[in-house]
Amino acid sequence: MPNRQLILHEDRLLPPDPGLRAIARRLYDQVADLPIVSPHGHTDPRWFAEDAPFPDPAKLLIVPDHYLFRMLYSQGVPLETLGIRPKDGGAAETDPRAIFRTFAEHWYLFRGTPSRLWLNHVLHEVFDLRVRLGPDTADEIYDAIDAKLKTPAFRPRALFERFGIEAIATTESPLDPLDHHRAIRDSTWPGRVVTAYRPDPVVDPDFEGFADNVAKLGEITGEDTATWAGYLAALANRRAYFREVGGATSTDHGHPSTTTADLSPKVCQELLDRALSGSFAAHEAELFRGQMLTEMARMSLEDGLVMQLHPGSVRNHNPLLFQRFGRDMGADIPRATDYVAGLKPLLDRFGNEPGLTLILFTLDETAYSRELAPLAGHYPILKLGPAWWFYDSPEGMLRYRRQVTETAGFYNTVGFNDDTRAFLSIPARHDVARRVDCAYLAELVGDHRMDEDEAAEVAHDLAYRLVKQTYRLGV
Amino acid sequence: MPNRQLILHEDRLLPPDPGLRAIARRLYDQVADLPIVSPHGHTDPRWFAEDAPFPDPAKLLIVPDHYLFRMLYSQGVPLETLGIRPKDGGAAETDPRAIFRTFAEHWYLFRGTPSRLWLNHVLHEVFDLRVRLGPDTADEIYDAIDAKLKTPAFRPRALFERFGIEAIATTESPLDPLDHHRAIRDSTWPGRVVTAYRPDPVVDPDFEGFADNVAKLGEITGEDTATWAGYLAALANRRAYFREVGGATSTDHGHPSTTTADLSPKVCQELLDRALSGSFAAHEAELFRGQMLTEMARMSLEDGLVMQLHPGSVRNHNPLLFQRFGRDMGADIPRATDYVAGLKPLLDRFGNEPGLTLILFTLDETAYSRELAPLAGHYPILKLGPAWWFYDSPEGMLRYRRQVTETAGFYNTVGFNDDTRAFLSIPARHDVARRVDCAYLAELVGDHRMDEDEAAEVAHDLAYRLVKQTYRLGV
Amino acid sequence: MPNRQLILHEDRLLPPDPGLRAIARRLYDQVADLPIVSPHGHTDPRWFAEDAPFPDPAKLLIVPDHYLFRMLYSQGVPLETLGIRPKDGGAAETDPRAIFRTFAEHWYLFRGTPSRLWLNHVLHEVFDLRVRLGPDTADEIYDAIDAKLKTPAFRPRALFERFGIEAIATTESPLDPLDHHRAIRDSTWPGRVVTAYRPDPVVDPDFEGFADNVAKLGEITGEDTATWAGYLAALANRRAYFREVGGATSTDHGHPSTTTADLSPKVCQELLDRALSGSFAAHEAELFRGQMLTEMARMSLEDGLVMQLHPGSVRNHNPLLFQRFGRDMGADIPRATDYVAGLKPLLDRFGNEPGLTLILFTLDETAYSRELAPLAGHYPILKLGPAWWFYDSPEGMLRYRRQVTETAGFYNTVGFNDDTRAFLSIPARHDVARRVDCAYLAELVGDHRMDEDEAAEVAHDLAYRLVKQTYRLGV
Repeated sequence: MPNRQLILHEDRLLPPDPGLRAIARRLYDQVADLPIVSPHGHTDPRWFAEDAPFPDPAKLLIVPDHYLFRMLYSQGVPLETLGIRPKDGGAAETDPRAIFRTFAEHWYLFRGTPSRLWLNHVLHEVFDLRVRLGPDTADEIYDAIDAKLKTPAFRPRALFERFGIEAIATTESPLDPLDHHRAIRDSTWPGRVVTAYRPDPVVDPDFEGFADNVAKLGEITGEDTATWAGYLAALANRRAYFREVGGATSTDHGHPSTTTADLSPKVCQELLDRALSGSFAAHEAELFRGQMLTEMARMSLEDGLVMQLHPGSVRNHNPLLFQRFGRDMGADIPRATDYVAGLKPLLDRFGNEPGLTLILFTLDETAYSRELAPLAGHYPILKLGPAWWFYDSPEGMLRYRRQVTETAGFYNTVGFNDDTRAFLSIPARHDVARRVDCAYLAELVGDHRMDEDEAAEVAHDLAYRLVKQTYRLGV
Repeated sequence: MPNRQLILHEDRLLPPDPGLRAIARRLYDQVADLPIVSPHGHTDPRWFAEDAPFPDPAKLLIVPDHYLFRMLYSQGVPLETLGIRPKDGGAAETDPRAIFRTFAEHWYLFRGTPSRLWLNHVLHEVFDLRVRLGPDTADEIYDAIDAKLKTPAFRPRALFERFGIEAIATTESPLDPLDHHRAIRDSTWPGRVVTAYRPDPVVDPDFEGFADNVAKLGEITGEDTATWAGYLAALANRRAYFREVGGATSTDHGHPSTTTADLSPKVCQELLDRALSGSFAAHEAELFRGQMLTEMARMSLEDGLVMQLHPGSVRNHNPLLFQRFGRDMGADIPRATDYVAGLKPLLDRFGNEPGLTLILFTLDETAYSRELAPLAGHYPILKLGPAWWFYDSPEGMLRYRRQVTETAGFYNTVGFNDDTRAFLSIPARHDVARRVDCAYLAELVGDHRMDEDEAAEVAHDLAYRLVKQTYRLGV
Repeated sequence: MPNRQLILHEDRLLPPDPGLRAIARRLYDQVADLPIVSPHGHTDPRWFAEDAPFPDPAKLLIVPDHYLFRMLYSQGVPLETLGIRPKDGGAAETDPRAIFRTFAEHWYLFRGTPSRLWLNHVLHEVFDLRVRLGPDTADEIYDAIDAKLKTPAFRPRALFERFGIEAIATTESPLDPLDHHRAIRDSTWPGRVVTAYRPDPVVDPDFEGFADNVAKLGEITGEDTATWAGYLAALANRRAYFREVGGATSTDHGHPSTTTADLSPKVCQELLDRALSGSFAAHEAELFRGQMLTEMARMSLEDGLVMQLHPGSVRNHNPLLFQRFGRDMGADIPRATDYVAGLKPLLDRFGNEPGLTLILFTLDETAYSRELAPLAGHYPILKLGPAWWFYDSPEGMLRYRRQVTETAGFYNTVGFNDDTRAFLSIPARHDVARRVDCAYLAELVGDHRMDEDEAAEVAHDLAYRLVKQTYRLGV
């Protein structure tokens, strides 16, 4: 493959039809430079607390990104060659340049994927490169990135500011002391970094080390977490801590299903006993998690934290890989997810509460038009999160808008989440979302389903206003 | 929001690409003014029997329309402020102008929804208004509508004629005496209004008052409806009455699933006993409903009524709302629906009958290409109803055609149903369907999958001929 | 309907937008004339072995094609009028001209279906006809085809060469002696015709005559197929035979579900005993089939045959039709298919094997983005077959690419399968696939998701390179 120019076309992702493109362009121009509000993601607060330089290009861009290494693994590239070390301490490539070269040789695999859009944006806009990545350009690009990472302009806080981030949320376990968040707040740096309360390790009996985690929760809070009342008090205690110390405005729940429950305290105590004993049936774990969603809703009604539910991923589907490398190795696979029966116990109790917000996500796109839009178009507490994970992509976003809007409208959706740990890709991801939303709106204007002045207002709402309002990140 | 012009663009819903738009326009021009045949809906026959003026704008356009108030409710607007009175007699807004204002303030929520297309059409075409609805124009629009509703030209029969309705079907329970239909037939007014036989209240053990309804059915028909034979005879008796007095050509069945059954009379009597006792398990009610679909098919084979099955809605999902306000409050939520196993008992018995027609609808769009098109593309009795309810919308209709046509063709579909109680929106709904079908056909012509003369024939068939033929509404 | 010209537009199936069409045209021009590699299908090897003239137009084009007669049957046309004879020896139309006329009268039913594209291509390109099929032209077209079929240029080998077929696979049962394949290899004709190993009749306890088939397998191979070890050895024996005598490079498995299993030899022997006894429960047959998929994977790892799984069809859904006419009468209906749990036992054991390839197909399009693309984007052994059966169509292929590419990329897909017994339609089908893939790629280029030089490379890969590589049909 000859070296070729890296082009980031100014009209990328806008409709090819000249009439629609002109409309989309006008809409996009009004939102392109709005501040980024990132209400849910997985960046590391240490970056912003310590503001140390990022390491080499491979460790920054490739090694931690399961979107990238899963694709190479699917084509027979061992994870070790990408610098991922087995849990047993086995060998893995340690030369970042070699890792980068292996990646560059397989870059063609990403044609047509959002990873390609994001990384091209990072190369072009963040690192100001103009040559297309490939085997022949790997070293040149590696060197250019490596040199820039050593400069002050590429430290986390400088990039945060350059990216125009108004606020960003990280995600922590209730067991986290939030030291980095405390350090950020104690510093003079004005960047707004908040945490989000993700209690999976202490509310999911199937989570590795659940009983130990709950015991630790008791230690931290001084509550007897072996009792149902003490356990709930401890969780509430940490929610308060997350609000106060971490500026949290939301919780997040990554459950295998949407199951919710509304059981008596006596049954809850029995389930907790079973869960802590480590000896329980699959349906008991499921019921416990379901009860905890309802408890979290109850607490949110009290303390105002916005709930997020990310259900439907079968985690660690590949046991060999899990055994060798651990979690998050690109082997999480979605499955069919029911919202209508699963959420009913929670909705029966809290569905009509004006003070509560529950944002639903899905990995099962069939639920968009059949379940999610009808539910969100009725229940006051429900809102729909943006297209998630595999569907955080141009086609995925268009399917989302086309299947959701006619029943739920725009105003039961919440704007964009980048949901990423790939910090440098955040502007790229928000830019893709803004472009695709404007492309969709241009379709509505183009066949006269909407007037352009209204579309402009909606574009602004989707890019900026709704996310601040829904996640309670306003001033 | 400043007052702006209400625009109903003549090319709305036609493809933005100039080449496709020209094709679509030519196709649409040939069907735009065809008479409206409305074979399935929920208008009130009293309107056409009495021809009294409609009440105020709010009671006509907003209060009865669950598409509208569900959206406002989802955004925290109490139903009472929209004039919906709780069952316990609690207070609700009674001033129609105040209701209209509340609605107008939230009109922006409907951006991108079909409700917006329909109501804009009503305002522009039926009421000849040229100002866009919004908080600032609510009073002006209210007054204009209110004034027109008091004139003879806006009475039901005048509108029926102005709308170019060739025939319309209402929907009644077998317990209904059809007095209004009788009055229409006894009048000199030539409008064709027929009933459809909807036996849910007397064939669904879960329906409120089922046992009482069946007893009443016995009284009306002089049959002993506690016996299986008498019960069936009573149902057949009312079918004959609906055909004779109400001009019925179809039945309609709103079941939670597609379950059908083909059981022995002995088992049927046992199920009937259980159902009438009010003490039965969920699966017994399901089986009874399933048996009744097969019985209805048997009767249809005898009397020629076309069957319609509308399955897959979880009715009254919100128990608080149901308790306070009753049925049809916007809380019906679709769920995954299986047609392949569910319909098998009925199809095994009657699937190959040339004299029978069973029209299938769905709220589960995943069934279009996977189940419904393959079934309708094989079984002689099966036809596919148009995109239904939440999918009676531009995107919904396009998904329907794109997923159904390649396997089932156009001629296993039945044209359009408006399925509405919103009488004034009927021309708007048929117009949307005609435009979207022409837009889809233009795509086929535009990339040379079909010749334009054939597309013109199909457009006419979809807008007019197929519905008359399938619903047996020809002369 | 007046006689009209049959037009096969040179830009058919390319995007109507002029800009996109130009891109698509450039891409298509580079792949239009590539050789055809047909790695999976159902043509009859006898044709190529004997090279006898095809019979009349009806027996060639209509009588064997369930895509065609299912549509006429759905509209009330008895199968007998299309020349399909009941199993009890009842009467059926025998005059091919009469069959052709009946078909031509109903040709309008296929508007918007891929059958119409394929047959129009056959008429225009293979038979050089320029008049559109219809009732008035049926005889003229019949006569023209009939005359050509009698000429040497329309014999199987001549057409094979004219079509530019580089390799084609047929599909045979392990019980097949492969005499025709042997004859082809023993001839001087250079055409490459290979078999594929389809063991359904000897691995599916629900297959008609299963126990007899397994006994016959024992006779052929000299193994005791009543023992688990002997049964496996016999299957391996035939795999070797298929590779050696038939040039097989792949196996194919047509299971009702994706269930796989990994059981102990003791349990396997018990299941085999039950299966051979003819007295077994549905779940036992399911488990046996599931075990056999895992056994086939194990053997593929040893002998290098590429596995294909075609799951999810409910065969012979219409019992009356099955009783009267037998299998493959257009009454096979897809159902919801789960890949995440079903394949897990096989994947747990072999999912990470670099030497194994398992190509997955689906009739449940909801699995594309939810399950298949994430699975194929992770597991080294998994690849995705092209849009299958009802979805081997322009809209079906576009949905496939749009839902698969962003997660799995292009390089976890395998190019096109025509999967047909309609030999004359093979160029049409490959042409449709190449056009639709270029149309999709043009969309990516048109909104700058991909550079055009990359799209050209992908177009070539999808049309030619990937299929040869994945099916191991290279030199």
